[in-house]
Formats: sequence, C-alpha cells, structure tokens
Amino acid sequence: MEGISRKIFLEMEAPTEEDSRSGQQRIEDALAQKGYEDVRLTLKAMRSIYPLCDEAGWEITVSLAWNGNNWMVVGLEAGDMTGNHYGIAVDLGSTTIAARLLDCSTGACLAEASGFNRQIAYGTDILTRIFYCKDKPEALEELRQVTVQSVSEVTKKLEEKTGICAQSCIQMVVSGNTAMIHFLVGMDPFCVFSTPYAVRADRPGFLPAADIGLPVSGYVFCLPGKSNYLGGDIISGMIDTQLYRSDSVCAFFDIGTNGELVIGNKDFLLCGAGAAGPALEGGVVKTGMRADKGAVDRVWMENGEIRIHVIGGQKPEGICGSGIVDLLAELFLHGWIDLKGKLISEKSLKIQKKGEMYAVEYAPGLFFYQSDIDEFVRTKAAAYTMVECMLRESGFSMEDISRFYVAGAFGKHVSKESAIAIGMYPDMERERIINAGNSSLEGAAKLLLNMRFLDDLEEILEKMIYIQFGAIEDFLHIMVAAQALPHTDMERYPTVMERLAKMNGNKK
Amino acid sequence: MEGISRKIFLEMEAPTEEDSRSGQQRIEDALAQKGYEDVRLTLKAMRSIYPLCDEAGWEITVSLAWNGNNWMVVGLEAGDMTGNHYGIAVDLGSTTIAARLLDCSTGACLAEASGFNRQIAYGTDILTRIFYCKDKPEALEELRQVTVQSVSEVTKKLEEKTGICAQSCIQMVVSGNTAMIHFLVGMDPFCVFSTPYAVRADRPGFLPAADIGLPVSGYVFCLPGKSNYLGGDIISGMIDTQLYRSDSVCAFFDIGTNGELVIGNKDFLLCGAGAAGPALEGGVVKTGMRADKGAVDRVWMENGEIRIHVIGGQKPEGICGSGIVDLLAELFLHGWIDLKGKLISEKSLKIQKKGEMYAVEYAPGLFFYQSDIDEFVRTKAAAYTMVECMLRESGFSMEDISRFYVAGAFGKHVSKESAIAIGMYPDMERERIINAGNSSLEGAAKLLLNMRFLDDLEEILEKMIYIQFGAIEDFLHIMVAAQALPHTDMERYPTVMERLAKMNGNKK
Repeated sequence: MEGISRKIFLEMEAPTEEDSRSGQQRIEDALAQKGYEDVRLTLKAMRSIYPLCDEAGWEITVSLAWNGNNWMVVGLEAGDMTGNHYGIAVDLGSTTIAARLLDCSTGACLAEASGFNRQIAYGTDILTRIFYCKDKPEALEELRQVTVQSVSEVTKKLEEKTGICAQSCIQMVVSGNTAMIHFLVGMDPFCVFSTPYAVRADRPGFLPAADIGLPVSGYVFCLPGKSNYLGGDIISGMIDTQLYRSDSVCAFFDIGTNGELVIGNKDFLLCGAGAAGPALEGGVVKTGMRADKGAVDRVWMENGEIRIHVIGGQKPEGICGSGIVDLLAELFLHGWIDLKGKLISEKSLKIQKKGEMYAVEYAPGLFFYQSDIDEFVRTKAAAYTMVECMLRESGFSMEDISRFYVAGAFGKHVSKESAIAIGMYPDMERERIINAGNSSLEGAAKLLLNMRFLDDLEEILEKMIYIQFGAIEDFLHIMVAAQALPHTDMERYPTVMERLAKMNGNKK
Repeated sequence: MEGISRKIFLEMEAPTEEDSRSGQQRIEDALAQKGYEDVRLTLKAMRSIYPLCDEAGWEITVSLAWNGNNWMVVGLEAGDMTGNHYGIAVDLGSTTIAARLLDCSTGACLAEASGFNRQIAYGTDILTRIFYCKDKPEALEELRQVTVQSVSEVTKKLEEKTGICAQSCIQMVVSGNTAMIHFLVGMDPFCVFSTPYAVRADRPGFLPAADIGLPVSGYVFCLPGKSNYLGGDIISGMIDTQLYRSDSVCAFFDIGTNGELVIGNKDFLLCGAGAAGPALEGGVVKTGMRADKGAVDRVWMENGEIRIHVIGGQKPEGICGSGIVDLLAELFLHGWIDLKGKLISEKSLKIQKKGEMYAVEYAPGLFFYQSDIDEFVRTKAAAYTMVECMLRESGFSMEDISRFYVAGAFGKHVSKESAIAIGMYPDMERERIINAGNSSLEGAAKLLLNMRFLDDLEEILEKMIYIQFGAIEDFLHIMVAAQALPHTDMERYPTVMERLAKMNGNKK
C-alpha cells in the first residue's frame, strides 16, 4: 500500500558520546535510510521524542503523514507498531455522513458507519442552511462546529466498532460537495448558489486535523471540486470508477439533491450539473419521503392491482425514489398513464379525483398526484437531457457508452428496468448500467490508500470541461422531447417498446 | 529584500460567470504570475477570502510565509499593504531576551526591546531550571509557558514602541542556546547537560507560531544548533559575521555563562565549548554582580590608587566582568599581583588579610579575594587555551587570525587592552579584535531579511566540526601554561611586555 500515510519501524542506536546526534536527527537519518528524505517533525512529534525513544530502546514506529508537499512525522510509538496503520475515509453528505476505518497496510475496511449530518437541524434543504449563516460569521461558526461534530460522531462509531480510536488514525480523506466542504472548513457557502458561482476555495488540500477540529493525528484532505455544483464527491467518483483511464466512453451520473454528470474517457471529460434530482429524493412529491422505515421502495402490478414493498415491513407512510420510479414504470407499462404521463381515470378505481386533480392510490390512503407525476417526468427528462446534450457536445451517442455508472443511493435502490421503462436511463444493455454505490466514499478510501491518485486529481481537474446546461441553446427543446414516456422518439427505447408490445399482446 | 516572508499586492479581476475560478484559485494563479508557484493557503487565510476580497474589489495584499519547503499564504489584507511588511528577530537568552521589529521591505530596524527571561524565577542558574522540570511534564509545561510569555512581553514592548502589533508581523526568527530552544518548544532539556549529550531536537525549523503560542501570523523559525553546548545563538553569530565566507582565518568567541568558540574560514569550521565563562559574569566572584546599576564596570590606577567607574554613578555594590578584567590588568601591570596572580601584600595598604586569605579593597568596603583572582585566572586560561588548542587542531597559529570576534555583553563592555594584559585575548593588532555585539540577535535579523541564509545554515552545520576539549590529551597541560599573567610564554605578549617594561622604566 502506497497511501498518503505510512508507518515506519525504525531500529536506531541509542545515543553515545561518540554519536550524540539529537533524537530528531536520528529519526530523520533513519527515515532517510529508508528512502524518506527531507521529512520534518511536527511540534507534537518533537515533544514526544523524550522519554518515548529512551524507554523504547530507540526502536520506535513513526507515523508519516503527507501534507501535500512533504512527509511529516506526526506521531511516535514504542516498538514495531507498523501493523496498526489506520486511516479514515469520509463521505460528507448533506443528509448522511458515511465513514470507513481502513487498515492502511492491507487496504482492508475494518468498519463502516454512518450518521445524520446535524446541519439538518438548520434546514433539511441546503439553501435554508446557507441562508441561515449568510454574512453571519457566528452562525457560520455554529454550522462549522455542527459539521465537525457530526463527522466526529461517525468516527466515534467507528471507534466503538473497532476499538481503534480516531486519534490513532493518521489521515482522513473527506469527500463532499462544495457547500459541505465550505461548511467543514468554515467558509461562507452562499457563493455556491449565487452568481457568479465563484466559490471561496475549491482545493483546500491537506489541512492539519487539529486546526479543523477532527481527531486524526495528521491531516484532513478534502477532495478538490471542479466548480460550485461539481464538488469533491464527484471527483471522488472519478477516482473510484477510473473513468478518466477508460479507453471507451463512459457516463457517470450522481442523482441526488442535484444531478451531476460526467461523460468521458482517457481523452476527455465533460461534466455538468443540473436540478435533475429533487423529485427523486421524495422531496417534491406530496407523500414522498426518504428511503427509511415506512417508505414504499418497490412497486409492481399483479392482476391489475398495485403491490408494494415497505421498508421495515411496517404500515406504509410514504414513497421514496425507487418506489416512485417503479410506480411510474408500472403505471405506464399497464396503461394507467399515457405517453405524456397523464392518469387515465377509467383504467382503475384506484385513480380518483382528489380536489382539483387526479391521483392514484398506491397504498391504503396514500396518493400519488398528477402534479407529482408531472414533476417527476420533468425531472427524469432533465436527467435524460443532460446525458443526451453532453454526449452531443462530445460527438458521441448513447450507443458509444460502454459503462453507465449511477452513483449514490438512487443508483443503489432503483430498478434498472423501471428507470429504463420511464426513459430516465437510456435503453442499453443492462450489464452496462453499473450501480456505483457510494462512489464518493469509495474514491476517498482509494485515495487514502494510494497517493498516486493525488496526481490523478490534477489530471482530472485539468481535463474536465464544465458544460453549462443553461448555455446550451436547445436544451429546453430537447428536454421537452424527453418529457414523454419513455421518450417522444420511441426508437430510442426498443426494449421498452418490446415490453409494451408484449403487454398489449397479453391483453389481446 | 529577499527574506523569509513576502508581501505581494495582487490586482485580480472580480469573478464573473465566464471566469468563475474560486477565490483560492484566483490568488494562487495571481501569485504564480508573480513567480510564486505552488503556494498554499492556510486554513485561516482561506477563511478570510470572503468577504475581504469582494470588499477590496479583488485588490489585496497577501502575506507569504516560508515554512521550510513552501510559501504559505498566512494572511490577506485589502488594498496595497506591501509597505507594511514586518518581522521579528529574537535573541532568547537565559537571562535577557532581546528582540527587534524589522521593516522587511527596507531592512530597517524599527525598534529594539529587551526584558528578563521569566525563567529566572525558577533559578538564576540554568541547571536549577532544568532540574526543576526534569521528568516532570507539568513543570516543563510551566517553564514552556513562562518562556513563551517572556518572549511575548518583549514583543509587546516592540508593539508599544512602534504601534505595530506582533500579529501583523509575518515571521519570527528565534536564536537561543539549545536549552532555551528546548524550553520554548516544550522539550525536556536535561539532555543538554547530561551524558551522552544527545539533545531532543536541534533543528526544530519552522513551526506554526499559533502552535508555539507566539503572536506572529506565520511561523517561528528557531535557528538550528550544532550540539548540546553549541546552539542556535552561535550559528546565528556565524550568519552575522559571515565567518564561513571569509578567505582568511577568523575566530568567534562568545563568552557568557559558557564560552563557545568557532575558528575557521570558507574552508573549515572548528567549534567547541567549555566552562570559560562563569567567573566573567560575576557569578563566581564573591562581590561579583551583573553589569547593572551599582556595578563597578571600569577600573584604573592613578598615582598608586585604584579608581573606579560605577554604572548609574551611584554607590558601588559589586563588580561586573569588565570591571574584573580591568582590575586584574591594573593589579598585574602595577605589580600588585605577580605572574601567578598572587597578591603581593606589601604593595599597598589596600591589600589586606581577610580571614584566611588576602584580598584587595577595590572600592570602599568591597574586596576582591585571592580565591576570586585564582578563579578568574583559571577562567581566562581556559578561554585562551580553547583558542590555542583549536588553532593547533586547525594547523594555524595566533598570527594567522585576521579577525577575532568577541560576541555578547562581555565583548561589548570589556577593554581590549585589559583583556590582552591579563592574557585572556591574544596579543594582536587591536583593530583585528572586533566587538560582535549581540551577534545572536543580529544573525536572526539577517536571516529574517535574507532567505539565502537558510541554505547557508545547512552549509555551516555540515562544515562545523565539534571539538571536545575534554578529548584533547594535553588540554590541561596547555591550560596550566596559560594560568600565568599574561602567559608563561611571555613571548606571546609583546605589547604587554612593552607596557610592563615602560612601567618599570617609569618607576626607576
């Protein structure tokens, strides 16, 4: 493992009158012999030389942390402790913080934990949090502390699971979107969402963990961002998927609160971001909810009846993203909604007029409204259009995409078939659609274990060209075409046409 | 001025939607255009980008601090503040702390201040302080804090004198002996005085000032030491005198609590340290005192009478180093003591039997005892022997010395003629004996203003060969020869012989 931290066992001679080099010099010389030149000691490490080295008979293990330019000795231990070499990778999400404690000598994941981002108390929506502290340094400091505390709580869980305290981990790699990194560092993130979208800092790099207030002994490395909407979490996804090393063209789509898209290969990387997400997270839909206990996460039809699966097996309380996609796909495939997504009331008694509009009762007492459908169709159209426009910009087409990565919780839970049926994903070979999982966390973990990726970050950032979807002249035009189910141009969805034909055949 | 800090005025374009680079990136790019590549921002600097840059119309001044490997942006200010570029040089003495506030753009010294080292409360003698905290981390922390506080008090005085607060200074360079630097950094300094004399750290380098607890915005650079007894104060003296660049052989002698000696030129540097000092500081002599109010600092004879000068013009309370050297020289030249330094009671009524031994009354009620003289003669013999032995080791002789630097308060106050008369200084052309003043402070100031000296430090440390005087076989033998006044080998002191001859001639 050639990560951004090292543990090196040094067997040194105890000082004698003939060789009275200082403790510091002995350590530096011993490290130089092992190929680590120009290593510096932190104040804390210097202070711990005595009595530790004497007591350990000058057989000690040093913890080295890369600070972006140099190796720094950030800790000393008696004896050979090279086997205890740990680090932490963190995905700092706006809702959930996920972290992993890694054995940096084997690369093994020793534990994973997650917890809520306590910023939620300041607004479930990021914008509310941002307005809370806009130009109010005390409020910003409050949110900074809450962010640090939230990360610390998750690392505490790792500690409880493994018995390894965070302080004995050397480095921490944090991946998060630009606003989250602003909160963590303590910078006013209003810039992320306001014109001209020039953020404060997008490459904070290696910052002393003690300065940030996080418990590891070395540095906190925040993955750099490309732009306001394209943050370190996406860059981390690049590291994870190695898209920038691919010979063939790949797409990487992170669908969450926002949608972020990268299309490219070893020769080019186009990226963009857009409001493709909200409806998918259940935030816009009336009975929408997060994928938590009580959420309908699977929907299918049997004998003209809607069947559901509820997380936790309890009474349904609402519907989450994967449930919505299933529901729409089933409604469409069974003809309860037409190509434009309009509910056809005569198709079922479950479709009822609720106030001004129609709605379908997908679970006892829970309704999915026409306005919800319309919102969702716009969302999926936006997502599809982002992919289409960006491909066009790159000179490639859907057929050229060898791998279509879908990152995040959405990609993990959504049924590929349903997402294709409603024209959200392109109609391609199913095995080419890859659930990238929490690629933000995966990338952070990989970087922790392999410092070569630091150079790759430079390469990625340099290669990336940010496409302003708003600047694409016919974006809206293309999106309107994508607002049909699965698409106005049905030729693009041969397998969906087949399913529809089969369904209609069955009916006959 | 090419010092270890810079102030750079950056006129940047405000962000636009077309150029939405982050504030951090704009600063880094603007610095790169001025030739500062790979500059990183500290957490504090990153946090201050907003609202400062916006408010300043993106015309800002950045403070750059060298951290030993890179330039770090440690502060931002609105507008062109390049004229306000300050730094602090400190001589951290065991008794006195002297500091200078420098204008780093012109090199001008804006103020100098000094104050006591509060460690004195833990013992006037360094050893007492060291024993106080030996293996007691809490006591060590107490002394560390006292040291930091003492330095801060002196910088506070600079602030009062100039109106420039220490926080608006970028870098601080501290020069001090090895024990003082251990105290400042917070390392147990017992090692400095105990076998095998391997210290904890002799090259602490650039440490974040905030971590040390000192008020500048960048780093505290501690001058490196060569060995336990040859600390950063002497290395700083090398920078000041440029001895290591000299074509001809020079000697550098710092006579204080200890005596530290360097002999060399651009080709070699021999160094050593020995107990040459205590008697010179008035510590060992019964009525000895520091060169303070009430101290006899000048002594001469007129018509067979001892005349004195007292600091502050008041009633004499004791005698300091320069007074002692004058007194001994006069006693010797006037035949009141013989070649061996023995008082000749019949020479004057001022020479009286006090208890077991003779003593000379140099001021009303103040006596200089035979034992004081003996102690002092041993001291001056040690000093002379150090020079002689080291010259012999280097293959040179007294005649080869082109410049003989005497550093510290001793060199400043002692009369060259008197020091030669008693054989403490070699008998050489007077203008070749140079009072180097507080070369420890001078060197620190020069380094602050010229980063080339950082490379020179490497060269100096590498070139320096430490001579253990204890390991020189005939050191004691040579010292015994030097215990005569001015020396057993009178040939070495032609001008003293002349004076004696003249005196005797006058008497005839």
